[in-house]
Amino acid sequence: MERLYVVGIGPGKKEYFTAEAMHALEASDVIYGYPVYTDLVKPLFPDKDYRTTGMRQETERCRQALQCANDGQTTALVCSGDAGVYGMASPVLELAEQYPDVDICVVAGVTAALSGAAVLGAPLSNDFCVISLSDLLTPWELIERRLKAAAMGDFSIALYNPSSKKRKDHLQRACDILLTNGKSPETVCGFVRNIGRDGEEKTLTTLAELRDTEVDMFTTVFIGTVETTVLGDRMVTPRGYDLTGGNA
Amino acid sequence: MERLYVVGIGPGKKEYFTAEAMHALEASDVIYGYPVYTDLVKPLFPDKDYRTTGMRQETERCRQALQCANDGQTTALVCSGDAGVYGMASPVLELAEQYPDVDICVVAGVTAALSGAAVLGAPLSNDFCVISLSDLLTPWELIERRLKAAAMGDFSIALYNPSSKKRKDHLQRACDILLTNGKSPETVCGFVRNIGRDGEEKTLTTLAELRDTEVDMFTTVFIGTVETTVLGDRMVTPRGYDLTGGNA
Repeated sequence: MERLYVVGIGPGKKEYFTAEAMHALEASDVIYGYPVYTDLVKPLFPDKDYRTTGMRQETERCRQALQCANDGQTTALVCSGDAGVYGMASPVLELAEQYPDVDICVVAGVTAALSGAAVLGAPLSNDFCVISLSDLLTPWELIERRLKAAAMGDFSIALYNPSSKKRKDHLQRACDILLTNGKSPETVCGFVRNIGRDGEEKTLTTLAELRDTEVDMFTTVFIGTVETTVLGDRMVTPRGYDLTGGNA
Repeated sequence: MERLYVVGIGPGKKEYFTAEAMHALEASDVIYGYPVYTDLVKPLFPDKDYRTTGMRQETERCRQALQCANDGQTTALVCSGDAGVYGMASPVLELAEQYPDVDICVVAGVTAALSGAAVLGAPLSNDFCVISLSDLLTPWELIERRLKAAAMGDFSIALYNPSSKKRKDHLQRACDILLTNGKSPETVCGFVRNIGRDGEEKTLTTLAELRDTEVDMFTTVFIGTVETTVLGDRMVTPRGYDLTGGNA
């Protein structure tokens, strides 16, 4: 039985790999992935056999990786962030029954909600939601329903895929849904571009301003709760401790 | 200016540390934390100066760590999982203005939602919520409101702190709220005990059964969407790809 590792590598730089991800890649003969992600891995493991497929070929990539492991080679399929959050773990496991001899191991990683939050400060200290604004695989009606629910519950929210060439207005539409379902225009928001990569930059703003901001597909957006505040240059959702006393 | 690292170490074993967390701990003279977490770090860095405070002394721990850095020693404050998710990043940043000379660096880590999901399969493949059932710092009314919203949005849900000695019925009450706000009794659920530690064990179940299950405080609970399914011994929320074709 050969193994297929589905590996979340975090936001990019080696600093954000877990030891488990490093060990899985070290143990693999062949490494599959979208070219942007395999390019991040190659400098660390230059001698592996890299195989890439392009955007929109995710299913084919999963099949090839499963087949490769089935053929007897220890294989890794790399994903940015976490393997299980909008990643390849789910399609691989869905296809797994066609490859019963492959031992699948999902390796968790630091998803952009966590790595981006650390850049901004601590926006997700309490209950939070992660929502993707891409409607390629999820109907827009369900995305709208989830945005509405997230506003009604006053969750902190991390928005993935806030924009693309074809979907320039999704962030604006999302902000409008949040604004009409209980989030105040003054809600503290932030966004981080190129998390954990060269050119990382963070911006603090409000929900009203965010509505009229254009961000790109390399950006993760954070929306606070009613309690979220700006402290110095950081976005912080208070955990709820009483910090007034000397020995609280 | 001295540095205070607020470090998420993941679920426990060294395998789940990021390289960044290892470097932060290596760079530190003094390491603060709750004893359970410092005990996980000690074998890796036996020569550091460890300082612990007990449960309910989180604020005091943050103050001491800030003061230690302020006094000139490079300091780390360790948290399980991610530093920003129900962790110490937020109270440290709230107290930071009292220590303007301390350079605070938040180090993200793999939170239990991600590490537990990898154990179960891929329950959080699409949009998801993370909700803590502890009402020590969040009013139960707000927790109820968020559970209701999470059900209305049919999110995948990761529940932290599903039980404690004082709060034996919180999981049952949470399940009842989900069941009365749109989640079916047949919803696929799972839970993982001792994620990434000795004695790790996973269980798959349904929401109706989960309601009548007792779990302990070392357990993270996962509730699926209407699409979540059991494949083999795994809990999988389909990402939404069309997997029927040979080259989809």
